[in-house]
Amino acid sequence: MIAGILYAYDHLLEGIDDTGIILAKKRPQNKIAILSGGGSGHEPADSGYVGKGMLDGCICGPIFEPPTVEEIVLAIQKSDQGLGVLLIVKNFEKDVAVFSQAQAIAQAQGHQVAQVLVNDDCSIDSASFKKRRRGVAATVLVQKILGAASYDITDLNKLKALGDQLVYNSNTLGVALSPASFIDSKREGFSLAQDEIYFGIGIHGEPGYRKEIFHSSERLAIELVNKLKNQFHFKQNEKYALMINGLGATPLLELFVFTHDVSRLLQLEGIDVCFKKVGNFMTSNDMAGLSLSLLKIEDEQWLKYLEADCECYGW
Amino acid sequence: MIAGILYAYDHLLEGIDDTGIILAKKRPQNKIAILSGGGSGHEPADSGYVGKGMLDGCICGPIFEPPTVEEIVLAIQKSDQGLGVLLIVKNFEKDVAVFSQAQAIAQAQGHQVAQVLVNDDCSIDSASFKKRRRGVAATVLVQKILGAASYDITDLNKLKALGDQLVYNSNTLGVALSPASFIDSKREGFSLAQDEIYFGIGIHGEPGYRKEIFHSSERLAIELVNKLKNQFHFKQNEKYALMINGLGATPLLELFVFTHDVSRLLQLEGIDVCFKKVGNFMTSNDMAGLSLSLLKIEDEQWLKYLEADCECYGW
Repeated sequence: MIAGILYAYDHLLEGIDDTGIILAKKRPQNKIAILSGGGSGHEPADSGYVGKGMLDGCICGPIFEPPTVEEIVLAIQKSDQGLGVLLIVKNFEKDVAVFSQAQAIAQAQGHQVAQVLVNDDCSIDSASFKKRRRGVAATVLVQKILGAASYDITDLNKLKALGDQLVYNSNTLGVALSPASFIDSKREGFSLAQDEIYFGIGIHGEPGYRKEIFHSSERLAIELVNKLKNQFHFKQNEKYALMINGLGATPLLELFVFTHDVSRLLQLEGIDVCFKKVGNFMTSNDMAGLSLSLLKIEDEQWLKYLEADCECYGW
Repeated sequence: MIAGILYAYDHLLEGIDDTGIILAKKRPQNKIAILSGGGSGHEPADSGYVGKGMLDGCICGPIFEPPTVEEIVLAIQKSDQGLGVLLIVKNFEKDVAVFSQAQAIAQAQGHQVAQVLVNDDCSIDSASFKKRRRGVAATVLVQKILGAASYDITDLNKLKALGDQLVYNSNTLGVALSPASFIDSKREGFSLAQDEIYFGIGIHGEPGYRKEIFHSSERLAIELVNKLKNQFHFKQNEKYALMINGLGATPLLELFVFTHDVSRLLQLEGIDVCFKKVGNFMTSNDMAGLSLSLLKIEDEQWLKYLEADCECYGW
């Protein structure tokens, strides 16, 4: 896969042999380097967001498994321009473990390294339910804003603080119509009957909070928008960025039907959707389904960063 | 679906109520208007190619069914700036019928209208086999080049002649891993066993030329590259544009694995792949599978047109 990506985008990207590291070919000097990564199987995440204006690099692990600590350390060494490195990490136990270990090693070597942990998945209904809020599709919005901001903000603590604020203002909810395929057959996914859907699933096939029979795109939109409304407590005229993300095997046609249903509900809430993105951004291999993300825009500058040009194949 | 597209891309696109017409919001004056269209279910084709630098508009029919003659005539009327309209039509019997009727009606009304018929599908093995070469993924490459060229070429006959030359230099071959879904249950698709693949299928589920058991991406690449080689009679140092197109339900990860396999075979042939595009460009609803297109670059200007900036959500 990585060889194919590097062939297709040889004008944008370069790899490091025998690793899952993909770096932007043109890495501007005098900025904080932004790295992200995690398991593969989520394409175009994260390689599709490497390039001028977004990430300086990413580290790809095997399908649904994080990269090694050594690879992350090497990516930090290669990308640090002297102003430090910000790691954007999706909140999964294994990902947090390897990125945190790599951070500690690189810091011991003298690199300034900070971490933004994205946990936008708001499917966890009950506090007693021992699951963490996972990092899913809104990660891409966080990557875009921090990527653009890294051309302005040269203080690593400030850039991390912006990232934390973005995460605090992000929520995502997903629904599956079919499970993902696993290469590793030992791994357990969920199963669904032909007409069943599953709310709140994770991007590695983690189980959700409720199965039901599929009725219509509109009913899906009502469930997901209501759940997000409960997170945000929508107020009239608040500004939001919207991402409707296909999980890999859902036709764009269906995403647009759902987009229309969502738009009508958000209009009723009186909120201002000032930025929209519809497509496959953070997939779950060949899972059929979608996720709905909202990011509350608390600062007009965030919108400018979302709209800024970038040279990335997946944005 | 159209309402969702117009909502998501309200800065780029506008519709005409109660029709399947989608027009670029900014339509430059003093150029030939380029229109395309056909059945829906192929998203991002064709709405994803409407915008500055590519198509001036498209006319979307129901899923896998062409739009009406009246809608095409209306789109011609709305988009003609006085220099005429070029229709880019995929070579399917029903599409050709409605676009040709609309062309005749608009011409009788005083519009200059020409048609480029794209028939890049080279899956038809035998001349005695009563099927036509269909218009599939290379249509998008033809749309891109003609769209960019329409800012330079103001003579409709010359632009059509360029289009015909592009079509002559285009070949595509597809393979399905699963059939597409049909909304219209009367319509017959093909069926495939779990481990079977089907070479030469069409984007509406038209049958292919051979079923076999799936072995590997590399074996797929050998079959498709060899078939394209027979069409083009590759010569060393010839230049080609490459498109690897997902049919809707194939993960990008798998497209990149295939891309790598194709790249090695093309390298052995000694041809120069000077332009590459990998992703979902001309889908077949939720069909799993892919197609491989090559366009022989006979004029350096074609490459410049491919590389030119455009404001389209699907390119």
